[in-house]
Amino acid sequence: MERDVIVREVGPRDGLQLVATVLPTATKLAWIRAEAAAGVSEIEVCSFVPPKVVPQFGDAKDVAAGALAIPNILVTALVPNIKGAELGFAAGVHKLNYVLSVSQTHNQKNVRRTREQSLADLAEIVRLRNSEPRYENVLIGCGLSTSFGCSLEGHVPARETLSVMEQVLALGVDEITLADTVGYGAPGQVREIFKAALQLAGGLPLVAHFHDTRGLGLANAHAALEEGCRRFDASLAGLGGCPFAPGATGNIVTEDLIFLLEAEGLKTGIDLPALGEVRAIVEQALPGEAMHGTILKAGLPKGFVAATPRLAAE
Amino acid sequence: MERDVIVREVGPRDGLQLVATVLPTATKLAWIRAEAAAGVSEIEVCSFVPPKVVPQFGDAKDVAAGALAIPNILVTALVPNIKGAELGFAAGVHKLNYVLSVSQTHNQKNVRRTREQSLADLAEIVRLRNSEPRYENVLIGCGLSTSFGCSLEGHVPARETLSVMEQVLALGVDEITLADTVGYGAPGQVREIFKAALQLAGGLPLVAHFHDTRGLGLANAHAALEEGCRRFDASLAGLGGCPFAPGATGNIVTEDLIFLLEAEGLKTGIDLPALGEVRAIVEQALPGEAMHGTILKAGLPKGFVAATPRLAAE
Repeated sequence: MERDVIVREVGPRDGLQLVATVLPTATKLAWIRAEAAAGVSEIEVCSFVPPKVVPQFGDAKDVAAGALAIPNILVTALVPNIKGAELGFAAGVHKLNYVLSVSQTHNQKNVRRTREQSLADLAEIVRLRNSEPRYENVLIGCGLSTSFGCSLEGHVPARETLSVMEQVLALGVDEITLADTVGYGAPGQVREIFKAALQLAGGLPLVAHFHDTRGLGLANAHAALEEGCRRFDASLAGLGGCPFAPGATGNIVTEDLIFLLEAEGLKTGIDLPALGEVRAIVEQALPGEAMHGTILKAGLPKGFVAATPRLAAE
Repeated sequence: MERDVIVREVGPRDGLQLVATVLPTATKLAWIRAEAAAGVSEIEVCSFVPPKVVPQFGDAKDVAAGALAIPNILVTALVPNIKGAELGFAAGVHKLNYVLSVSQTHNQKNVRRTREQSLADLAEIVRLRNSEPRYENVLIGCGLSTSFGCSLEGHVPARETLSVMEQVLALGVDEITLADTVGYGAPGQVREIFKAALQLAGGLPLVAHFHDTRGLGLANAHAALEEGCRRFDASLAGLGGCPFAPGATGNIVTEDLIFLLEAEGLKTGIDLPALGEVRAIVEQALPGEAMHGTILKAGLPKGFVAATPRLAAE
């Protein structure tokens, strides 16, 4: 299906990161399978971190294997370091999403390395991919955390974010994600950064990753969209957060983002009612967890015509 | 204080309309007084409707009188018909906010009149104001409900909203509010309508009134802002809805809107932490009522500098 915008579901990774209940592998895969059936084309399914750091991802290898057996999705895994990347390569995922923070303090807290060390590790990961024929089809993305502000350092200047982005581009990655990890961004700032970042990126995929911590998530997404961004991360029911960013709640809600995009006449390829069924799976698996989002509670506007034809009608 | 944007608090009216608990007059006035102290310059304090229709507004006259004794606020009352306007004039409020719906079906359900009858009644209200010297300083605003869609009729064409707006302008009102009563609007549509409406309005104040029913409230507000709109309605904690629009939840959250505007560098004249104290008053008075909004839960970004200097520091 032709899509105007790519929405990557990050719920099974970012959404589960702070959730105390360790979901059974089968439940994670049921979630991922249902998202794929709803038309989601890329899913960040796990994180290759030590299980003692995040027990939720102790089954990363099995989740990756299960997800790779599901047709029509690009399977992405987050990797915070070289060890994680090696595990990701070994698992055979389609894309590694390496992360580092624009803010030095946040990077130190998050991955216990300086930004320079993290950049050097990324260079090593790209070198490994380029030198191993069996890894040659693995895509390498890089997420820049705290691109719009940091809960430890406060304001992050746009030039700092863009400067780190240039350094990452020079390493030969396949995609860059600008992440508002702690929900500090505001639309004017998002416009400024995305305008410049899209120019820097040239044709390289640039992903917007917003959190709705302070209510501006969808306004920020719309600002990035208007600047030309066509790739977004989101989490089903707005699950998620960051363990090192106090007060951070969830990612923007996948369902509400899809409504925004389809209402703007953009094909996402994703069927909103089918996301309701995914929501039911997650709600049942995580009783007591806050399920955010409005569109599937309020219902679509009367007579609403989505840009994406209902999958059932295809 | 010089303000770049005027935010009108509509919580004591729109916010309370669907709330079953009838708040004591003293509590409503404590709320209004605390909002005024936080820097809010205009408050829609009540609705002059028959108490048997909305028992919550049975004390409209007393609330209006109490609010008029509070310094530095413009006191607005909603009036749905001539009878309500007469009560509003008698109460001495600064502004009457008359409402009619762009959607014929919604207008019929809401005020049991055709749109043409509602327009004729508005003409009569303006004539009354203009002919009675004691009313000459009373401002008359007109809110156009369902300007962005109707839960009964579905899509409302932009030309329909703009055509009703032209008819209302011709009657000599002092202000027009375009209201997304049921939360159907999307940013592109908001841009289109506000761009044309601001031109039509000339210098006349044009207010944006968004509901967050489907999650796009602040994205819509930002779109209207970028088109040049400088007046917004909002409700503390997002209280509110519409009794005739099934599924409608609340107005956009005053606190989150203030954060958006101040983050964009626009002075609202409103002190965010002081709104937290207002929130405490309402939360205590309405236990069990959903209190929406994120900024006062998550806290301001570290090092955040508001465009409005803290009132305490003045």
